[in-house]
Amino acid sequence: MGEKHSDLVNKSKAAFLKWRALPAPERGNYIRLFGEALREQKKEVANQITSEAKKIISESEGEVQEVIDMCDFATGLSRQLYGLTMPSERPNHRLQEIWQPLGIVGCITAFNFPVAVFGWNFCLAAVCGNSIIWKPSPHSEGCAELTKKIWDSVAGEYKDLVLIKKGANDASVELAEDENIALLSATGSCAMGKAIAPLVSARLGRNLLELGGNNAAIICPTADLDLTIKGVTFSAAGTTGQRCTTLRRLFVHEDIYEEVIKKLIPSFESLKIGDPFDRNIQVGPLISEQSYEAMKKTLDDCSNKAKKIHGGQKLDIEGGIYVQPAIVEVDSHIDEMNDETFAPILFVMPFKKLTDAIKLQNSVKQGLSSSIFTNDFRESELFLGPEGSDCGIANVNIGTSGAEIGGAFGGEKDTGGGRESGSDAWKAYMRRITATLNHGIELPLAQGVEFDSES
Amino acid sequence: MGEKHSDLVNKSKAAFLKWRALPAPERGNYIRLFGEALREQKKEVANQITSEAKKIISESEGEVQEVIDMCDFATGLSRQLYGLTMPSERPNHRLQEIWQPLGIVGCITAFNFPVAVFGWNFCLAAVCGNSIIWKPSPHSEGCAELTKKIWDSVAGEYKDLVLIKKGANDASVELAEDENIALLSATGSCAMGKAIAPLVSARLGRNLLELGGNNAAIICPTADLDLTIKGVTFSAAGTTGQRCTTLRRLFVHEDIYEEVIKKLIPSFESLKIGDPFDRNIQVGPLISEQSYEAMKKTLDDCSNKAKKIHGGQKLDIEGGIYVQPAIVEVDSHIDEMNDETFAPILFVMPFKKLTDAIKLQNSVKQGLSSSIFTNDFRESELFLGPEGSDCGIANVNIGTSGAEIGGAFGGEKDTGGGRESGSDAWKAYMRRITATLNHGIELPLAQGVEFDSES
Amino acid sequence: MGEKHSDLVNKSKAAFLKWRALPAPERGNYIRLFGEALREQKKEVANQITSEAKKIISESEGEVQEVIDMCDFATGLSRQLYGLTMPSERPNHRLQEIWQPLGIVGCITAFNFPVAVFGWNFCLAAVCGNSIIWKPSPHSEGCAELTKKIWDSVAGEYKDLVLIKKGANDASVELAEDENIALLSATGSCAMGKAIAPLVSARLGRNLLELGGNNAAIICPTADLDLTIKGVTFSAAGTTGQRCTTLRRLFVHEDIYEEVIKKLIPSFESLKIGDPFDRNIQVGPLISEQSYEAMKKTLDDCSNKAKKIHGGQKLDIEGGIYVQPAIVEVDSHIDEMNDETFAPILFVMPFKKLTDAIKLQNSVKQGLSSSIFTNDFRESELFLGPEGSDCGIANVNIGTSGAEIGGAFGGEKDTGGGRESGSDAWKAYMRRITATLNHGIELPLAQGVEFDSES
Amino acid sequence: MGEKHSDLVNKSKAAFLKWRALPAPERGNYIRLFGEALREQKKEVANQITSEAKKIISESEGEVQEVIDMCDFATGLSRQLYGLTMPSERPNHRLQEIWQPLGIVGCITAFNFPVAVFGWNFCLAAVCGNSIIWKPSPHSEGCAELTKKIWDSVAGEYKDLVLIKKGANDASVELAEDENIALLSATGSCAMGKAIAPLVSARLGRNLLELGGNNAAIICPTADLDLTIKGVTFSAAGTTGQRCTTLRRLFVHEDIYEEVIKKLIPSFESLKIGDPFDRNIQVGPLISEQSYEAMKKTLDDCSNKAKKIHGGQKLDIEGGIYVQPAIVEVDSHIDEMNDETFAPILFVMPFKKLTDAIKLQNSVKQGLSSSIFTNDFRESELFLGPEGSDCGIANVNIGTSGAEIGGAFGGEKDTGGGRESGSDAWKAYMRRITATLNHGIELPLAQGVEFDSES
Repeated sequence: MGEKHSDLVNKSKAAFLKWRALPAPERGNYIRLFGEALREQKKEVANQITSEAKKIISESEGEVQEVIDMCDFATGLSRQLYGLTMPSERPNHRLQEIWQPLGIVGCITAFNFPVAVFGWNFCLAAVCGNSIIWKPSPHSEGCAELTKKIWDSVAGEYKDLVLIKKGANDASVELAEDENIALLSATGSCAMGKAIAPLVSARLGRNLLELGGNNAAIICPTADLDLTIKGVTFSAAGTTGQRCTTLRRLFVHEDIYEEVIKKLIPSFESLKIGDPFDRNIQVGPLISEQSYEAMKKTLDDCSNKAKKIHGGQKLDIEGGIYVQPAIVEVDSHIDEMNDETFAPILFVMPFKKLTDAIKLQNSVKQGLSSSIFTNDFRESELFLGPEGSDCGIANVNIGTSGAEIGGAFGGEKDTGGGRESGSDAWKAYMRRITATLNHGIELPLAQGVEFDSES
Repeated sequence: MGEKHSDLVNKSKAAFLKWRALPAPERGNYIRLFGEALREQKKEVANQITSEAKKIISESEGEVQEVIDMCDFATGLSRQLYGLTMPSERPNHRLQEIWQPLGIVGCITAFNFPVAVFGWNFCLAAVCGNSIIWKPSPHSEGCAELTKKIWDSVAGEYKDLVLIKKGANDASVELAEDENIALLSATGSCAMGKAIAPLVSARLGRNLLELGGNNAAIICPTADLDLTIKGVTFSAAGTTGQRCTTLRRLFVHEDIYEEVIKKLIPSFESLKIGDPFDRNIQVGPLISEQSYEAMKKTLDDCSNKAKKIHGGQKLDIEGGIYVQPAIVEVDSHIDEMNDETFAPILFVMPFKKLTDAIKLQNSVKQGLSSSIFTNDFRESELFLGPEGSDCGIANVNIGTSGAEIGGAFGGEKDTGGGRESGSDAWKAYMRRITATLNHGIELPLAQGVEFDSES
Repeated sequence: MGEKHSDLVNKSKAAFLKWRALPAPERGNYIRLFGEALREQKKEVANQITSEAKKIISESEGEVQEVIDMCDFATGLSRQLYGLTMPSERPNHRLQEIWQPLGIVGCITAFNFPVAVFGWNFCLAAVCGNSIIWKPSPHSEGCAELTKKIWDSVAGEYKDLVLIKKGANDASVELAEDENIALLSATGSCAMGKAIAPLVSARLGRNLLELGGNNAAIICPTADLDLTIKGVTFSAAGTTGQRCTTLRRLFVHEDIYEEVIKKLIPSFESLKIGDPFDRNIQVGPLISEQSYEAMKKTLDDCSNKAKKIHGGQKLDIEGGIYVQPAIVEVDSHIDEMNDETFAPILFVMPFKKLTDAIKLQNSVKQGLSSSIFTNDFRESELFLGPEGSDCGIANVNIGTSGAEIGGAFGGEKDTGGGRESGSDAWKAYMRRITATLNHGIELPLAQGVEFDSES
Repeated sequence: MGEKHSDLVNKSKAAFLKWRALPAPERGNYIRLFGEALREQKKEVANQITSEAKKIISESEGEVQEVIDMCDFATGLSRQLYGLTMPSERPNHRLQEIWQPLGIVGCITAFNFPVAVFGWNFCLAAVCGNSIIWKPSPHSEGCAELTKKIWDSVAGEYKDLVLIKKGANDASVELAEDENIALLSATGSCAMGKAIAPLVSARLGRNLLELGGNNAAIICPTADLDLTIKGVTFSAAGTTGQRCTTLRRLFVHEDIYEEVIKKLIPSFESLKIGDPFDRNIQVGPLISEQSYEAMKKTLDDCSNKAKKIHGGQKLDIEGGIYVQPAIVEVDSHIDEMNDETFAPILFVMPFKKLTDAIKLQNSVKQGLSSSIFTNDFRESELFLGPEGSDCGIANVNIGTSGAEIGGAFGGEKDTGGGRESGSDAWKAYMRRITATLNHGIELPLAQGVEFDSES
């Protein structure tokens, strides 16, 4: 069952050393070719995602598109990877900042984005000069294998740049403890992160953590409700509630609460649930029976506390665990809202003042994604300000899920603090050299320190 | 002894909330005033440093100057703290990146830079909108108190922005485990870092680690030897070998080995050792008897393996633990060179090929500072390249110690990976929001995903 | 009268060569000291400004503060001036971008900001390593002399870094035509810019132009009218309408037009007009009789076209040319609105659709400043978008005047395109080197070109 | 012959308005497709270049590759185009910098890079949201037509984004004078630039000028002569001396002067000159008889002043104007070295001190490209420093020609100051908005100015 860990690491290290020697724009060109190959096999990869992760086919295609977008972005980056030049305080001195490759990047991905999260990590890691060992979710190893096959088809002598390590938690622990893994990028639950991170820290390795979310949206009186209902429904029920950015908590201003509920319930009820390969379907099955059990438990637990529960029942559809996405109306922020149940349950609660809603939103341990629906400029700015959302993602008039690759993706607090994809996320995959060059014939010391044997 | 931890944290949190509400340029103005106050009391602070940390007075003054430089730099930064605006892939959408304050920053500092390391952290943390709880080394609590007094003199209602937590390791552990400490910035030994980091990681907090170095310099045939000997002597013996950037290992090209040794030994022997308050003195005492014991142990351990040991003996000078800085000539990279003995011992070893010297330099666990002395352009570029120094600092024709504040300061591998001071080090003290704004009346999804109830 | 031009230039060049040799952070330190000296003499400088430029004393103090802010900002910049390091497409190659000083900067300033505009230019020019020859407005040469005196008091051997060239247009032409002036930064009217710019271009010199504005604000139905009226009144009547960012055209949504007019007229009428040294006064005199004549002419010209004219009359106050700021209500965008009359005339016009108002705003030749007052998020985003304001400055819920130094200041179209003050405006004061370094033993060509005698 | 100018402009404006409405990443995708189409037709385009511009086929292929590289780079940029977010000095305020499209870009290109210079401009202009009117050299209109055909093949409804305007100087003047051309990017001679720039400036339009070079290289004693001779020969004789970056002046340290000459002459003499379609050929014909006449005139003029002239004669090869590249040995910097003769003449002169050689290098009016060949670190740093090369391009151990697209390309002084291609060159193709947003209920003024009717 899989290669011996040390052999894998040795192969990856060898691949790294060879790859590092390539000029970055040449590395970028391989990533460009990878993108082209993915464009050609988009359908095949999307089918594999839908097979394993049970996502509807349009989302699976979007996921492949996300990797393709990353390839384009990373190709451009391969001529950037900008460090700085800067002046020195000393005559005939000059400062520079130069970024260099790190080594082997370990990459732990979850079942729900079986390809995209790898793409975020690999495209950046690769143009930055690193090799990668990928531990996919046991649910979606086929996606990993297909993706690797596509890489291999363009990689020439650099096939080993991507190596797959199969396994469950034990495999993750192996990566976490191995000093050869310069950076461990791990996507999964907060519990997984809390278990893994100290192992990496204990050896002073680098973590890049994308852990659970417990995302909220706030609907204000001026919100465009058509757009809002659409955004809320997609964020809460899309991907069957199994995104880290899935909307789980909804705060609605009391003045429009009834109206929102009146529109939201039919929106949920009219969702087309069924075979994810069917293009008319919006919601596919849960990934596993356990997922349904967790969902059921949460709904049961809050049955007394909730004002009303809509949906949530198992559906009699063949070929998977299908559920009706649930809306749980509550009057206050109940305990069950503090944890992320990886299933389509949306808690809905009224609020009086926006500052209160923001406080509730921020009251949970996780800090991944958040949204406000408003057409009020002051409200949107408050939400983006220092006393606004404490999440890594804060959207205005968009749901909590569905990020573009150009921004940095990730969250705060128990979400783990890592950032992937756009902006300067690439810096996590490199090491920084601060170089001071003295081209003079004197040796003045910084800060005017004197150290002279004549003095 | 000292305030109760929870009281301290509550006071710090209250200070944070008030301070965060100030516009960043106003925060910058307080830091400017702090710099002005330090300018006025530079002598007093320098004296306190020399009293406690036993550094020579010129170095103590340089240390205060470093904080002053940081204040100037941070004042400018207070109008920058740049996030990004960027285009969206969707019509009527726009992306932004906004940086917000974090909360309470814990700051653990070591005896050898009792003020500067605080300055690096505080100046950035403060303009970024955070409060700070400072745990100084038990050796230099007087410096912390004096510095706080100076802050208080300019801080008006923001005195609690800086709070001091006294104590030894237990105090550090308390900070590491406390969820209220958003960022723990810790300077000290690798052992300390390995103990602290997992505690912070276990609660998914942020670390900024500046741990031990085991710094090397390489002298190439074309080096300007006058400048080189001066740089090596200062880096190895300055601050009595008690900087994290102290030069500990010296690789000399075999063709000039004899010449270098012939110049280096008298350079060490002519060092003026004694009362650090005396402006003619270059080397003060060790911080403690234990330091001397560690030095002695290392020298004893390698006595059989070394080709020759010069100096290293205790000196009969009153008022402190004085030693003659040691030069240990070796033929190969012996075990004692793998660890950082926090005392003035310089291992010197010849090399044939530059690539071999670089490999030896990189062979240790730590990765803080490194130097090459050469006038050969290819050698300097090799040293700064992907196969060159693996340290966070890589200097050309400068010793390993004495960084300017404009660059990012810190190191790789067991040095902990943190970056302080210049460049974009301020980002560690803030949280990043990626905001996507939809100002249209449609809700297109990223990556072209379709999720439409009509479809 | 004044030094011979060539002598001035020679002195400036000598100063440049000496100053350029200073490390940038040392240059920054001189600018810091300049800021400190200005802080001490803020009152004196403000008085001089009010004497010559007739601005109210609070604005004059604000103007000095602006230079002080620039000093702080530039001090920080002196350790940045960031170029880039980047990877090469060729093995053993590396790219760098390095910024170097330019030489002599010519600086033409106008009467209305007799100190601040110099400050913007000088602080950046100086930390970037340049000298400056300053041609102030003939109206405010006393301000220039006082400012130079303060510079001299901190400049030590670098006094000649700032030299003053007195004169009118002929002096500007001399600077424009002189090949020794590497960059000519000119603030004034569009006519001046159109005369000067071709002279500089003809010798392929660099221009940095801050020319006239013809600034508009748009008031939308959701605007907070208290704040809006305050902002409009200050922008239109403050500085007696003599800022390049003065509000000259106001577009008000028809639904609130009457209400706005009803509030705006008393706001204008209650303005305290009189001696600018009196702290109760809000509006001082015009700079000259000609200014009044231009104002009168504009008002006369539009007397038939306007729906109604409020104010505009000369006031019987001693010691200057005092006028009552005018409001001219119009139904359509009349010819008189296309030109900038440098006096307090505010044209007010109703609009139906925001897109129409934006089109009118953009219909003039100038493109400096613009504002929208709204609490509607979609409107503010539209205003900031590609089809929104075409000005260099676009504010939301702030008047058109009163920029902070942290942003880049300047405008598009006939405003000249230059940018001063914050962001990366400093780049205009330096020259950029793109350096490719080959440290290998081969000479591969870019883009894979082959040029080999063996082939 | 060609469309009426105003029709062209109207079509371009219409194309701009439609294109601007596309999200930037979608614009990037069109550019990516353009790159893919160029990849497929690389051979065809290269052949056309060689036909018209007479460049050897490998250089023509390199030129197409350069456009392809630009497409990849610009695709990545389309998700960047970064403005800044920054803190305000006022409570409840926030600053942003946003970049918006400009409008129509005029693009004048020269015969010698009939495709690449267009590619630099178009790829950036297009992802930035602009349309382009391209005036190619009359020598290479076929290249323009073919390139446009390829654009059209991928452009769908955006074909008019690229329009071609044929003609000679009169066409350039028409573009320069037309207010609809927001930016005029012009590549050509200094004389052309001096004629065009004032026309654009007179209407306060934007120039981006890439004018003539008069490039020098310096060979120092430590230079690797094999590499150096190769680099010098390619830079001086490649493209038959008809690049703006062609090496025209060579300064050789006197200690190696004889050795360099001894190697350089045979290197020139062994150049394979002939049919540029022949892959064994290194040097093709001159573009025209006039070029040869200019070359002859320069050689004649300096025949008395030169120590020795090698080569320079017309060759008896059919199908073009072929010349033997000339080496002119001189003892001092003669007048003929001050002007750029667009033909393969290399002046060679000995020097004693590097600072003298740099002074001579910088003594000409042009400031495009420069090189130093040295293995001495101090020399290379001196060359890159403030007192080093005053050119926009400064290479170490590479010739003056053959830049990569990742860096900013362009030069200083009479070269015109423009920058194209990499780094932040894209900013020239956009307009910058500095936006201050007030989301509070107060209206504080910047710099603490008071303007209150109550006061």
